[in-house]
Amino acid sequence: MSPVPYCTKYSSAGTQKIHGIHSHQPCQPGDHRRFVPATLGGDMDDRIREHARILVDWSARIDAGDDVVVAVEDGAHDLAVAVAEQLGDRGANLLSTYQSDELTRAYLQAHDGSFTENPDYELALYERADSVLFLKGSRNTTETADVDSDQRQAYSTARQEIREARLDTDWVSTQHPTRAMAQQAGMAYAEYKDFVYDATLRDWEALADEQARLKEILDDGSEVRIVADGTDITLFIDGRIAVNSAASVAYDSHNLPSGEVFTAPHDTAGVVTFDVPMTIQGRRVKNVELTFKDGVVVDWSAEQGEAVIDEIIGTDSGSRQLGELGIGMNRGVDRVTDNILFDEKMGGTVHLALGRAYDACLPEGESGNDSAVHEDLITTMGEGSRLEVDGETIQRDGVFRWEDGFEG
Amino acid sequence: MSPVPYCTKYSSAGTQKIHGIHSHQPCQPGDHRRFVPATLGGDMDDRIREHARILVDWSARIDAGDDVVVAVEDGAHDLAVAVAEQLGDRGANLLSTYQSDELTRAYLQAHDGSFTENPDYELALYERADSVLFLKGSRNTTETADVDSDQRQAYSTARQEIREARLDTDWVSTQHPTRAMAQQAGMAYAEYKDFVYDATLRDWEALADEQARLKEILDDGSEVRIVADGTDITLFIDGRIAVNSAASVAYDSHNLPSGEVFTAPHDTAGVVTFDVPMTIQGRRVKNVELTFKDGVVVDWSAEQGEAVIDEIIGTDSGSRQLGELGIGMNRGVDRVTDNILFDEKMGGTVHLALGRAYDACLPEGESGNDSAVHEDLITTMGEGSRLEVDGETIQRDGVFRWEDGFEG
Repeated sequence: MSPVPYCTKYSSAGTQKIHGIHSHQPCQPGDHRRFVPATLGGDMDDRIREHARILVDWSARIDAGDDVVVAVEDGAHDLAVAVAEQLGDRGANLLSTYQSDELTRAYLQAHDGSFTENPDYELALYERADSVLFLKGSRNTTETADVDSDQRQAYSTARQEIREARLDTDWVSTQHPTRAMAQQAGMAYAEYKDFVYDATLRDWEALADEQARLKEILDDGSEVRIVADGTDITLFIDGRIAVNSAASVAYDSHNLPSGEVFTAPHDTAGVVTFDVPMTIQGRRVKNVELTFKDGVVVDWSAEQGEAVIDEIIGTDSGSRQLGELGIGMNRGVDRVTDNILFDEKMGGTVHLALGRAYDACLPEGESGNDSAVHEDLITTMGEGSRLEVDGETIQRDGVFRWEDGFEG
Repeated sequence: MSPVPYCTKYSSAGTQKIHGIHSHQPCQPGDHRRFVPATLGGDMDDRIREHARILVDWSARIDAGDDVVVAVEDGAHDLAVAVAEQLGDRGANLLSTYQSDELTRAYLQAHDGSFTENPDYELALYERADSVLFLKGSRNTTETADVDSDQRQAYSTARQEIREARLDTDWVSTQHPTRAMAQQAGMAYAEYKDFVYDATLRDWEALADEQARLKEILDDGSEVRIVADGTDITLFIDGRIAVNSAASVAYDSHNLPSGEVFTAPHDTAGVVTFDVPMTIQGRRVKNVELTFKDGVVVDWSAEQGEAVIDEIIGTDSGSRQLGELGIGMNRGVDRVTDNILFDEKMGGTVHLALGRAYDACLPEGESGNDSAVHEDLITTMGEGSRLEVDGETIQRDGVFRWEDGFEG
């Protein structure tokens, strides 16, 4: 069964409380755009309110009395209002911070570069916070283009403990659709909003169940073979643990939307072509081809942006090896929008990351691939492709074994 | 000499560093709108940048390494960018919070009213902050009109320690001009911006010096007599201390703009008519007349909003007495805009407050008038008016003794 959009049938008799959130009946794609929940008033796009509800309930699992920081990007005001409403309803505490690249640019360009390390007042805030909700919503995705990268790096380095304190909370990062993000995706604004909500307002519980199947297969499996146009690669994953990334802190998943299952290969052999174009460090990258032998990249090329790939691979010894195999399972993401939050979750794609492996994929005591980088690259599983685990076909032509239309 | 607008002659050879800020040559009213400082680039209204500079240097006295919270109202983005630039330049630390009445409304309307008392994470932030800069800039001054006042009160009560921690910092509150504020003032947006900057971008050092003269007169004086249309009232101030409110924490003054000298009378006799219309608790009040005997209001009336005055006077025993005599000295404020931050500072006005006296006006060990309220009411010192201290005329027809055009 294909994942279905998350319907807002608040008045449905079938609604019941499960795991602290309301479970709804599945419905058809697009349905959730037509529903106006009976109990909600006002002229707010109901999808914004539903986004906030999923964020607070499903993703962040906010309870009464929780100390919540809401980090509002300057284009995410409307989502912030909806989140404030949800937090009020749950009896959580609210402190909102203002995240604007225009402020950051002005501050960094004027500063002499000797930054205070982890200012005490900000550290104290995040050390005591239960949750941090990042509401992304840029008004210009290139706002910091003229900020010196050393300056940016120095600022970031001086704030490492603050960042770690933030990541120690039940944090969730999500995306409010803005005109700037639509532009980056090459889409009309209304079209982009439909895209974001199709990807975000899903039946996450059903997707988590579906992903659990794949996790089980990967946990039990030893060899994953990926065959696609320009790709025939085998990844060895025995002993590694797959993560069911279902857009909730309850699943160690901190992005909304999410929708992938990922693990950490310990060895790799073969060739892979990443046909999904991306922007890495501000530069376009297209059709990257990597050849692996004994787990290490031995040959590489790119139709565009090869210099970026050279830099990544040349970072350290770990950046020549894979840290992640991720399998996209979010059927709401139906196109590439040059935003990794969405692109790597796309149903019918697979991504591999050069560099660091995530600890969650490693058994107690085992260390995975280590590197200063973690760079995801994406392959479309199109016509003629297949994904095998220990010789068994799990996905063919981009369709999983348990989905309608699968032809074993 | 009349106070002069604050000119941004950055390249002037006459510029010199005094008390940590740059001192500039006086210039003519309106001049500062024509100058484009040679060292500043970008298309930002130079007045916004100058506003930020005065706020950071003159008002808040920010030093390198200071932990600064910038509280950004949702219409104050442009000022926030300029303040971020100034803080970066000073090497101060920046954390910005997002203040939006739309968030507050959504949160309060959804909350059941049992608020957590002084949430730990927010308290920790303000207890460690050196300065809090409130950048007011409402996009709708009536946004919380439909929030239940008991709910608002309960929220405020639950956060008293946080408020106190904030007021224990070197805080400053200032106003970025927005369309909503222009509308409240009954002005065009461009016209309102001119008004705000005329009031704010001043030579504060010169005004502080001028106000020091009046402070000395009041500190030495015993009886202040105010004579104006419908007003002949005497206030007894012997032993009380006048505050030179010069828009800087160095002067115990936390508003930008400011521009007043105020003290706390211990006795009052006579009649006063407040001709400046105001909005108090959402209700219009006009031409309030109060009669005092032995320090207490014995008779009162109002052409409009008398019920509000009844309520204020009936609050407690202290609300029938005066807590403040304030004398407006900001010549940049040349009209009433229904915003107490500006109205009470207007040069050529006097304001009296029913209720609580400020501690700063009281000698060590002496207690002033106590009340739950502090309500400022304003009188224009027009043609035929005079202000006397111990029988000597300090101001006539709204012109101070030391100003051009004074006719003793």
